[in-house]
Amino acid sequence: MSSDIDITRAIFESYSQRFLQSVSMDVAVVGAGPSGLTAARYLAAAGKKVCVFERKLSPGGGMWGGGMSFPVIVVQEAGREILEEVGVRCRQHGPYHVADSIEATAKIIAGAVDAGATIFNAVTVEDVMASQGKICGIVVNWTGVLAAGMHVDPLSLEARAVVDGTGHPSEICRIVERKLGLQTPTGRVEGEKCMWADEGERLTIENTMEVYPGLYTTGMASNAVMGSPRMGPIFGGMLQSGKKVADLILEKL
Amino acid sequence: MSSDIDITRAIFESYSQRFLQSVSMDVAVVGAGPSGLTAARYLAAAGKKVCVFERKLSPGGGMWGGGMSFPVIVVQEAGREILEEVGVRCRQHGPYHVADSIEATAKIIAGAVDAGATIFNAVTVEDVMASQGKICGIVVNWTGVLAAGMHVDPLSLEARAVVDGTGHPSEICRIVERKLGLQTPTGRVEGEKCMWADEGERLTIENTMEVYPGLYTTGMASNAVMGSPRMGPIFGGMLQSGKKVADLILEKL
Amino acid sequence: MSSDIDITRAIFESYSQRFLQSVSMDVAVVGAGPSGLTAARYLAAAGKKVCVFERKLSPGGGMWGGGMSFPVIVVQEAGREILEEVGVRCRQHGPYHVADSIEATAKIIAGAVDAGATIFNAVTVEDVMASQGKICGIVVNWTGVLAAGMHVDPLSLEARAVVDGTGHPSEICRIVERKLGLQTPTGRVEGEKCMWADEGERLTIENTMEVYPGLYTTGMASNAVMGSPRMGPIFGGMLQSGKKVADLILEKL
Amino acid sequence: MSSDIDITRAIFESYSQRFLQSVSMDVAVVGAGPSGLTAARYLAAAGKKVCVFERKLSPGGGMWGGGMSFPVIVVQEAGREILEEVGVRCRQHGPYHVADSIEATAKIIAGAVDAGATIFNAVTVEDVMASQGKICGIVVNWTGVLAAGMHVDPLSLEARAVVDGTGHPSEICRIVERKLGLQTPTGRVEGEKCMWADEGERLTIENTMEVYPGLYTTGMASNAVMGSPRMGPIFGGMLQSGKKVADLILEKL
Amino acid sequence: MSSDIDITRAIFESYSQRFLQSVSMDVAVVGAGPSGLTAARYLAAAGKKVCVFERKLSPGGGMWGGGMSFPVIVVQEAGREILEEVGVRCRQHGPYHVADSIEATAKIIAGAVDAGATIFNAVTVEDVMASQGKICGIVVNWTGVLAAGMHVDPLSLEARAVVDGTGHPSEICRIVERKLGLQTPTGRVEGEKCMWADEGERLTIENTMEVYPGLYTTGMASNAVMGSPRMGPIFGGMLQSGKKVADLILEKL
Amino acid sequence: MSSDIDITRAIFESYSQRFLQSVSMDVAVVGAGPSGLTAARYLAAAGKKVCVFERKLSPGGGMWGGGMSFPVIVVQEAGREILEEVGVRCRQHGPYHVADSIEATAKIIAGAVDAGATIFNAVTVEDVMASQGKICGIVVNWTGVLAAGMHVDPLSLEARAVVDGTGHPSEICRIVERKLGLQTPTGRVEGEKCMWADEGERLTIENTMEVYPGLYTTGMASNAVMGSPRMGPIFGGMLQSGKKVADLILEKL
Amino acid sequence: MSSDIDITRAIFESYSQRFLQSVSMDVAVVGAGPSGLTAARYLAAAGKKVCVFERKLSPGGGMWGGGMSFPVIVVQEAGREILEEVGVRCRQHGPYHVADSIEATAKIIAGAVDAGATIFNAVTVEDVMASQGKICGIVVNWTGVLAAGMHVDPLSLEARAVVDGTGHPSEICRIVERKLGLQTPTGRVEGEKCMWADEGERLTIENTMEVYPGLYTTGMASNAVMGSPRMGPIFGGMLQSGKKVADLILEKL
Amino acid sequence: MSSDIDITRAIFESYSQRFLQSVSMDVAVVGAGPSGLTAARYLAAAGKKVCVFERKLSPGGGMWGGGMSFPVIVVQEAGREILEEVGVRCRQHGPYHVADSIEATAKIIAGAVDAGATIFNAVTVEDVMASQGKICGIVVNWTGVLAAGMHVDPLSLEARAVVDGTGHPSEICRIVERKLGLQTPTGRVEGEKCMWADEGERLTIENTMEVYPGLYTTGMASNAVMGSPRMGPIFGGMLQSGKKVADLILEKL
Repeated sequence: MSSDIDITRAIFESYSQRFLQSVSMDVAVVGAGPSGLTAARYLAAAGKKVCVFERKLSPGGGMWGGGMSFPVIVVQEAGREILEEVGVRCRQHGPYHVADSIEATAKIIAGAVDAGATIFNAVTVEDVMASQGKICGIVVNWTGVLAAGMHVDPLSLEARAVVDGTGHPSEICRIVERKLGLQTPTGRVEGEKCMWADEGERLTIENTMEVYPGLYTTGMASNAVMGSPRMGPIFGGMLQSGKKVADLILEKL
Repeated sequence: MSSDIDITRAIFESYSQRFLQSVSMDVAVVGAGPSGLTAARYLAAAGKKVCVFERKLSPGGGMWGGGMSFPVIVVQEAGREILEEVGVRCRQHGPYHVADSIEATAKIIAGAVDAGATIFNAVTVEDVMASQGKICGIVVNWTGVLAAGMHVDPLSLEARAVVDGTGHPSEICRIVERKLGLQTPTGRVEGEKCMWADEGERLTIENTMEVYPGLYTTGMASNAVMGSPRMGPIFGGMLQSGKKVADLILEKL
Repeated sequence: MSSDIDITRAIFESYSQRFLQSVSMDVAVVGAGPSGLTAARYLAAAGKKVCVFERKLSPGGGMWGGGMSFPVIVVQEAGREILEEVGVRCRQHGPYHVADSIEATAKIIAGAVDAGATIFNAVTVEDVMASQGKICGIVVNWTGVLAAGMHVDPLSLEARAVVDGTGHPSEICRIVERKLGLQTPTGRVEGEKCMWADEGERLTIENTMEVYPGLYTTGMASNAVMGSPRMGPIFGGMLQSGKKVADLILEKL
Repeated sequence: MSSDIDITRAIFESYSQRFLQSVSMDVAVVGAGPSGLTAARYLAAAGKKVCVFERKLSPGGGMWGGGMSFPVIVVQEAGREILEEVGVRCRQHGPYHVADSIEATAKIIAGAVDAGATIFNAVTVEDVMASQGKICGIVVNWTGVLAAGMHVDPLSLEARAVVDGTGHPSEICRIVERKLGLQTPTGRVEGEKCMWADEGERLTIENTMEVYPGLYTTGMASNAVMGSPRMGPIFGGMLQSGKKVADLILEKL
Repeated sequence: MSSDIDITRAIFESYSQRFLQSVSMDVAVVGAGPSGLTAARYLAAAGKKVCVFERKLSPGGGMWGGGMSFPVIVVQEAGREILEEVGVRCRQHGPYHVADSIEATAKIIAGAVDAGATIFNAVTVEDVMASQGKICGIVVNWTGVLAAGMHVDPLSLEARAVVDGTGHPSEICRIVERKLGLQTPTGRVEGEKCMWADEGERLTIENTMEVYPGLYTTGMASNAVMGSPRMGPIFGGMLQSGKKVADLILEKL
Repeated sequence: MSSDIDITRAIFESYSQRFLQSVSMDVAVVGAGPSGLTAARYLAAAGKKVCVFERKLSPGGGMWGGGMSFPVIVVQEAGREILEEVGVRCRQHGPYHVADSIEATAKIIAGAVDAGATIFNAVTVEDVMASQGKICGIVVNWTGVLAAGMHVDPLSLEARAVVDGTGHPSEICRIVERKLGLQTPTGRVEGEKCMWADEGERLTIENTMEVYPGLYTTGMASNAVMGSPRMGPIFGGMLQSGKKVADLILEKL
Repeated sequence: MSSDIDITRAIFESYSQRFLQSVSMDVAVVGAGPSGLTAARYLAAAGKKVCVFERKLSPGGGMWGGGMSFPVIVVQEAGREILEEVGVRCRQHGPYHVADSIEATAKIIAGAVDAGATIFNAVTVEDVMASQGKICGIVVNWTGVLAAGMHVDPLSLEARAVVDGTGHPSEICRIVERKLGLQTPTGRVEGEKCMWADEGERLTIENTMEVYPGLYTTGMASNAVMGSPRMGPIFGGMLQSGKKVADLILEKL
Repeated sequence: MSSDIDITRAIFESYSQRFLQSVSMDVAVVGAGPSGLTAARYLAAAGKKVCVFERKLSPGGGMWGGGMSFPVIVVQEAGREILEEVGVRCRQHGPYHVADSIEATAKIIAGAVDAGATIFNAVTVEDVMASQGKICGIVVNWTGVLAAGMHVDPLSLEARAVVDGTGHPSEICRIVERKLGLQTPTGRVEGEKCMWADEGERLTIENTMEVYPGLYTTGMASNAVMGSPRMGPIFGGMLQSGKKVADLILEKL
């Protein structure tokens, strides 16, 4: 049966090496939705060491289901360009472009990996590390351990920048709001406002920013923090927000 | 707010067109795991109209989590070739090749879509259509409707061949076993046997077959029906089984 | 098996046509209880394009169960007239009229449909659309998708007026309260007060009003917003409230 | 506050009278789906004392949701006639007729009540009464009592005939199968077979029969007992089965 | 089978008569714990029409389980006398008297019934009736209907006085606090304080009072409203509180 | 605070003494329903050391809820006499006598305790002790420990006779059926048959017997073991069965 | 079978004696994690009567799982010494010492017991006793009783000092905060701050203090009360905090 | 913040080394109850490489709770000797010895670790490896992954012998029974019989054996496989069974 344990060794040794390399990274992206993955792709392409942490087993976030689980998404012109960079085929539909939501999600994931980002799935970020007024890392645990209600301590990983790509719940911003206070005008997570696609798309890009030293928002988390409208299954703003947060971080690091 | 409903129209019209085109297809693959997606890729590449039906929101099946949620998979030589066809990067590790499980899963999904297969997610196949001793279609419902315990009738879709790619549960074969009887030596789903990677890999290819007129098994469902060993996170046999079932169907249709 | 997929086609094409016609409507009624359905009946009879959105599979709201699940309801004179418009048989009982709660519910549903309203069931309204200080649509998703905890984006539908007929929870008003603020004296959902049938009946009609530009309340939602008494299984006030909200909207549109 | 308790008295006295009148009846129909309600309508129209017992709060069974929760149903010619008897508007669609599933359900309920049937909702039939080789009544409890897991005895109601209209689960037949044995060729509930609309429609009428002295099946329960195909969202056969069971019973009583 | 439905008739007619007699009563006691049942016993013995409403199937509240489910309770001298009035045997133990908690509970229930009180079990009081600044009745529903999540309206019953005997949750007081405001010094339910048996016993009697016109507290609900210590499995104070609330009400009615 | 721990001491010492006295008893009755409690009353009155073990916190079994949670029960003449022995007031109703189900349950409990039986509540009997072909005790655990899913061993208590008074589930008989085989004609628990009050009442007395050396059935457990009809809310047969099992055991011990 | 009940007697008598001895104690430690157990060890070694109360069946708290369920823990020099006192083997790893988390947990438990502390498991502390401005005991119940939702009163145990060793939830401090107010600068439980191992370790010792007369915190509960950083799987600070709280109490008692 | 990630590195590197050393072992013990841990202690002391796999976070199995969660256990003379080998203090009680169940459990765990066994907690053994008629390893997964319902493949570990120490469920034997057939007289898991302490203790030692080449049972799993009586909270037989299985394996390896 030696081949069975050769498989075990191959998997564990590969993982072990990858985990130890990720104990200290340039950027930790929390949440593997379209904006987080896009941010990771641009950051990795620029040579940064980037890891993405996803609570679920499958990355992709809310993009797989399209709108109302009809697996189709919509983008505007700027979004179409970003989709095409990872090989997604878009079709014109009135003033918009539509794409298969499954194709788009799979290729955004593949694009981030191809650019050099590492994705850890089935891992929950349950806290951040902070010292001297700056976020300097994340605190992770197995999602399964939490699901089973097991009382187990997490582990810390160091990061020079952390991106909250958790969407509407803006989980990391909420942790920082409660424990440290955000450095936004109100200092609080305002919550997303009523649906308004155009306005939401425009603002998600504008709202993409550093909300506490070392902590950035992207995608719908940006709008949730700043109290801007939600968007529904139009994803161009989210992709552009991912690109913008990459730019903001590259200026700093 | 007209842009918001333009998005709604774009999504629903695209879906509507896709759904109506899929009411009658050549091959229905049930379960979007690695073997089902690989079968779909080869069949679509050969010009067949193929749809894949996945119960969950995200395709990929049990491949995202690698082994024990360490996101790494292992393949042998033949499997490596199939992975490389969709652009997955493999690294030698002792007698095996290892790959990032997330990269592999995303690219197998993208590969099937690029070849022309249509994936329907969040849809459960709850029965098959049968008439005159042949499986001739599938019966589908929204996974969410079933999760909510709503009493709602399903809809039927016609297919000239149906592939059971649901893995260990071999759900479609169990339906046929109960309602019609399988045309295997024992007529029953035997259940997978103890783990034995090499033997399991060899047999999953051998066991890939037509188990009732119009119904084929692939991947771990093949071993579950025939009572062969399970394999763990080595995926070469599954990919080869997907290729084989495509060949078997192409001979028939 | 062609007949099976003819059935599929007939159902999907009919639905598709109905859905696309409903992407933009005059009035969206949220909640298919007695007041919402009555409002829909009068509005449709007046030539407006009205759709009713019900979270559950079966419309009818809290009327099926009568009082304490004894399937009988009570109305006063004005309510009796509205019930008789849809063919419900009432019997005098002391100062009141009683009717079979099941007959009444079924006929109120049928009455709305006969008048031309479209009912969408198994659909949850999870948000509204707002722009420039006016509610201009609703945001919907499958109830099953939400029940299954699937992360899926909703779709938007345009409406010139929205009616909150969700009863005590006054769900739409609570969304607007949180995101925009209501334009009632306190700006808040006050919650229903203690049971007092006569007073509650009188006030539910008085409280039926526009609470934010484009958003109207009807039935028990009106009392919940304004902090008036609840009523129990006497339904005349609710039916009159449905009639009143129809009148209010017809004046505006 | 006297009006509040006048309402209570009006409801309880009406119910009390109705309950005591129903302690002994001609026909007890279990399950308020389309076939059971149709049977109840014809039986009541023929002057029989008929009660329908529904476990849920809302009657209508699996008809509200159409196919896959697209609220549209399909019937053939014979079914169209039965629908039109209760005022449902049908539209031709290829070889079939389509109708709004919500309109159809509401009107089938209203039709049964108008004909004189009494519907008890929120009541579960948990057993039958049997003596001297004949089913002679049903044993009922509140659905809520059972849902709460309360240990409470049921009450008995006498009926000269009992109709199992519970659909696929064929609950009453399963009770009799276990406790007394059915008087069908195999004596067992065979379970429905794979979907085949035409064949299923034809057989559901043929399978409508007396399966034990005093116990009749209708609709999908007939096919489940006899091991015939299921049908999906085509309802003509079910409506005709409801009509047939009424005829069978009228011959006997 | 006529005997079976004679049983049904006997039960329903007895209940029906009892229910209709209880539509209007002198005192409604909410919660069948030791203080509520004792209050009911003294009130009924004084000739008042008293009903006790218990959410669970079995009356008795928290007394069955003694302390830490060791079925023994403790009383002081004054409590012993009240227990002996209903025939409970007490044994001296140091400064206290102990009794079998099961004997005590059963006999307190029997004592209330023997004195003429009517107990309704499996019924939840979900609201009160109020008009002109006075509580004038209760609003009830089946506990099972609520457990099943069924949307069903409650019924109203008239009472000249209402006693909150629901213990720590002080459910009725919380409803009145939220909807009307209590007429205690703070106007709020303060919540019970830390355990201190002697102090708690003394105060529960002192705190027994009218907290809103027509609404009285008894037993642990009194301490919860006024923010006094809890007591644990010593029941003398609760019994004396039940006696006191009866006296207070008898003075008023 | 010394009084608080005096209460603790009083309760624990009383319980401790009672528990140690019950480590070995004459008769263990499992299930505190009407038949088990009646058996316990007669056995204790005859001088036997009897303990009753009840899984729930409140004894009384299925009697509290009357029929369909209308709190009324029915008995025939023989049952009336047994009820009156414990002071329950019965009223004639046609051929039957009716009683308040709550009064009856409380007084049957009190009657057993007054006669000298000890009731342990919140305790589950999870097994029996057997040696040399005879049941010689029971194996108990806290119900709460089992509800919490804690892995904790039970304790054994010795009894010269064990009575299965668990009603329809006939839990103790099922344990013995599985582990040792019953000594009834079929050796199996047959399960109760359809409702037939008269026949069920007659047979429950006839079926009351020793089903394995040292193990007796009473009440509905007797009918469940022997495959006789169930009875509903008529309790005379159960009470007579309790009396009969006491007689059978007194002959043996 | 006499041996079976000899086992029952042996267990119950041993427990009974231990329980009665623990009705009044010097120190009650709530929560059997590493800091609580260490405090208990030093206190018992100094001759105090100490009991530890653990909600779960197994003591050890969050130490069994190491970090992220990799069963390894880390300590600094001072922690190493405390671990070695109970025989745990540590290995140098960079600036730290690592130990097997399972070995460490088992030996910390054994160490406390060997020193003379009594551990009660499966027991929940649901309140404290307070009189005259001082915590003077705890109020306990079976965890299983609470898990089963049974309504059962707790029992009181007297203690001259109470230690809150419940970790992050700081359950005892939260009870006192709500009912009495803490005597810390803010009077409130602040909640733990972001992870920072060094700072957290230093502060947990500093924060170990008397927060209300008679109530002390230890370990992570100290940081949670004072709003200091959390630590993750480094346990030296917790062990030192346990030692410190023992010293503080020894000074007082 | 470098110290935080030094802790992460220290933990992961220690674990990684331990995991890779355990990929191939002499003996895999499944279940960390008293018999499995005792077997592991003797085997490790004899120089074998032994790993114990425990599904829960805390080892110890059913011993922590003593009898009925009174934390005391009982042993006979032979058991006392084994307990004293690991330092547990026993006290004579009639014919038996009693010990604190918490002390005993902690010291049995510590004893196994001190002897050189490695314990993996929070890991579930979900299958075995088998080839050529011999069990040759185990197949493991994270318990948390399974609890979360994540679809993730397990990993294989090689072992020359496997011990089923899972107690009554005898999980490993049930897997082998289903997939390969046991090599016991009946080939099936018989299930434990009624409680009989002496007989159970004697037989658990006798039943400790090799049930399939490479698979041994110990403790209560032995009695469950062979259909012998269960024992309750007397642990001597289990400890002796652990010792015996170690001897049997040492003879073979």
